[in-house]
Amino acid sequence: MHDAPALTPTPSSATQAAFDRLCEAHPMLIGIEQAGNVIPGMRRDLVLHAGPPITWDRMESAMRASILGGLVFEGLCETIEEAEALAGSGKISFAPAHDHAAAGAMAGTITASMPVFIVEERNSGLRSYVGVNEGLGKALRFGANGPEVLERLRWMRDGLYPLLKQALAISGPMDLKLMIAEALRRGDEVHNRNKAATSQFFREIALALVATRAPHDELEKALRFISRNDHFFLSLSIAHAKAVSLYVEELGAGDIVTVMAGNGVEVGIRVASLGKRWFTAPASVADVNLFEGHGLDEATPTMGDSYITESIGLGAFALAAAPAISAFIGGTVEELIARSERMRDITVDEHRHFRIPALGYKGVPSGIDVRKVVATGINPLINTGIASRVPGVGQIGAGVQQIPMGCFTAALDALDRQS
Amino acid sequence: MHDAPALTPTPSSATQAAFDRLCEAHPMLIGIEQAGNVIPGMRRDLVLHAGPPITWDRMESAMRASILGGLVFEGLCETIEEAEALAGSGKISFAPAHDHAAAGAMAGTITASMPVFIVEERNSGLRSYVGVNEGLGKALRFGANGPEVLERLRWMRDGLYPLLKQALAISGPMDLKLMIAEALRRGDEVHNRNKAATSQFFREIALALVATRAPHDELEKALRFISRNDHFFLSLSIAHAKAVSLYVEELGAGDIVTVMAGNGVEVGIRVASLGKRWFTAPASVADVNLFEGHGLDEATPTMGDSYITESIGLGAFALAAAPAISAFIGGTVEELIARSERMRDITVDEHRHFRIPALGYKGVPSGIDVRKVVATGINPLINTGIASRVPGVGQIGAGVQQIPMGCFTAALDALDRQS
Repeated sequence: MHDAPALTPTPSSATQAAFDRLCEAHPMLIGIEQAGNVIPGMRRDLVLHAGPPITWDRMESAMRASILGGLVFEGLCETIEEAEALAGSGKISFAPAHDHAAAGAMAGTITASMPVFIVEERNSGLRSYVGVNEGLGKALRFGANGPEVLERLRWMRDGLYPLLKQALAISGPMDLKLMIAEALRRGDEVHNRNKAATSQFFREIALALVATRAPHDELEKALRFISRNDHFFLSLSIAHAKAVSLYVEELGAGDIVTVMAGNGVEVGIRVASLGKRWFTAPASVADVNLFEGHGLDEATPTMGDSYITESIGLGAFALAAAPAISAFIGGTVEELIARSERMRDITVDEHRHFRIPALGYKGVPSGIDVRKVVATGINPLINTGIASRVPGVGQIGAGVQQIPMGCFTAALDALDRQS
Repeated sequence: MHDAPALTPTPSSATQAAFDRLCEAHPMLIGIEQAGNVIPGMRRDLVLHAGPPITWDRMESAMRASILGGLVFEGLCETIEEAEALAGSGKISFAPAHDHAAAGAMAGTITASMPVFIVEERNSGLRSYVGVNEGLGKALRFGANGPEVLERLRWMRDGLYPLLKQALAISGPMDLKLMIAEALRRGDEVHNRNKAATSQFFREIALALVATRAPHDELEKALRFISRNDHFFLSLSIAHAKAVSLYVEELGAGDIVTVMAGNGVEVGIRVASLGKRWFTAPASVADVNLFEGHGLDEATPTMGDSYITESIGLGAFALAAAPAISAFIGGTVEELIARSERMRDITVDEHRHFRIPALGYKGVPSGIDVRKVVATGINPLINTGIASRVPGVGQIGAGVQQIPMGCFTAALDALDRQS
């Protein structure tokens, strides 16, 4: 299985150069700021969403529900009903977060006043922006938009964000690359399992939070919020991957994937040499574990920008580092590792810094080569959460899915036309 | 390798019952108190040490240096020179920590005013006591006793301990069994690798510490001390294992090992059916990684009570859960796992709760059967730190060692005489 099939094309020197950037990228968490103050082109009447471009009328119900909650949260209207009218009125613009150096899990909704982590790739100064993780269950990113969801978002903006901003100023830049390398040694794949990475981040941020000397009750609330959410680090993992991806994309050459993302209707990818163009295919649902009481007809098809972690060799590409995830996403440990290891057939090489102790410190398979995907017919795997199509319900499952082949054949066509 | 040799004796029903206790023991961290107030039989003129009994004049220099530091710390004298005279004067008594429901890493020195964690086995109410980890390098347990070591110990007693006591009262009992089960899923073997377990504990204790509403500077110092020591959890892992061992020992039957410990001169074991009797053999040094600039002649032979973790199936018995430890103790991942897995030939069964994801959730090999050790000739492995024989130097290495066969043949003799 470690020998690529004979038909697999050898990566070009440009692809190799893009892969070098993927390995050498070094993202640091440098701060947190409200989206409107830092995300390029962000405005109060603009809502960022996950995946490739999509108009309001074509969006899946979970993404719509999430955006409606975002509009109320932003104070652009009072109720979800008013938001419904506003969203369809033409007064609000929608754009992929990925078009604004940002990314968001699941629905990916980012509005102007939401705080976003700022991650800087230190070779280039390129910056990525990702919102703060709200926790599991009823969360805006899964399409929940009830009062408790909005209230938590308000506290995250008015209570948590100022504290985190002070704390990150005290701590100085945090090395996300090192944290992720260590998290892989502690059983995370930093997409669907973030327990160890969250613990590492907590060890650092707790010191800085206390050093702000904020009142004890505010500190307690902030610390509890972070400590009680095993997925808190996911935002940082996405921001890290997005910063890596921006650095690869900046090269403007090579056949490796820089983005994989879904909006619930379509899945799209981008390729280093093809810039910001999207190559899309219809989104689907398959191979997922649904929580008790939920059916497949209720599951939103592939949605979210978090597959940027797989784009750089983490998540489903790093399951061999995270055998304990089988309890969460289903399957035996052996099956999961075998599926994950198969990604070596469609990637440029093993990552030079992200290594898996249990495989004798072999690097994770990294740099998805469009030509290899098409030649082998092997779809890239992604770990994912599943949002309910029923507005307000939230997460109803998780699993391992595939990025559809249509994205890669379309990208290959474009590559062939280019050359 | 998973089939025990044909000559291996089948465990008796008493041994099986002792093994059941080993699996079902459930230690909880319930508090912290000064040793003199809680350890049974503890007095101001008594010093507890690691391993089997030993008189002052026979002790290795690292243990002596550690005890001298303890006497000065305790205020029984002013200088290390005065302590030397006092220790040999007959006015101070020495006893194994294990004889007082306690245990200590390396030299294992416990004096009356030192704070000790209190761990209670919840089926039986049996309690174990272990001092707080001082960090790596120059530490009393490695025989360092300079001013900075004593000053840190004083702060641990006068600053850290009152805070931790309040925090643990706020948090309520912490489930160490669950924490260790999770730490195994995060790449720790909770003896020489405690990074994940320390992170888990930190996530809990940080919340409780802030909830004490102590002044910010005191909180910062306490949080930094814990966060900056990847081995902080080791004390709790030892206390957990000792509580398990007390529960097994209480049964008073079965051929499984309840204690393995060294004092730097002799290594001793105890067996469930043989109560508190020690079965000893000379301590030695072998197979260790020394830090640059140190030689084998400077290495203290096997010393410490932390091998109680191996006695219950953790540490060197659980290396398959902790492949990343190879960087710390040397050897390839495959070699380490193969050596660790060999422990299945000398243990009763796999542990029912401590499982290794990478082995398809197989339990760690647990319950060292004295009869199997002698029949197979396979020595139990232990992970260990190495203290310098030169007083004041501290740790000079780490590695995987063996418990000498002489301990087991002596115990088997006693078992055979008993039956």
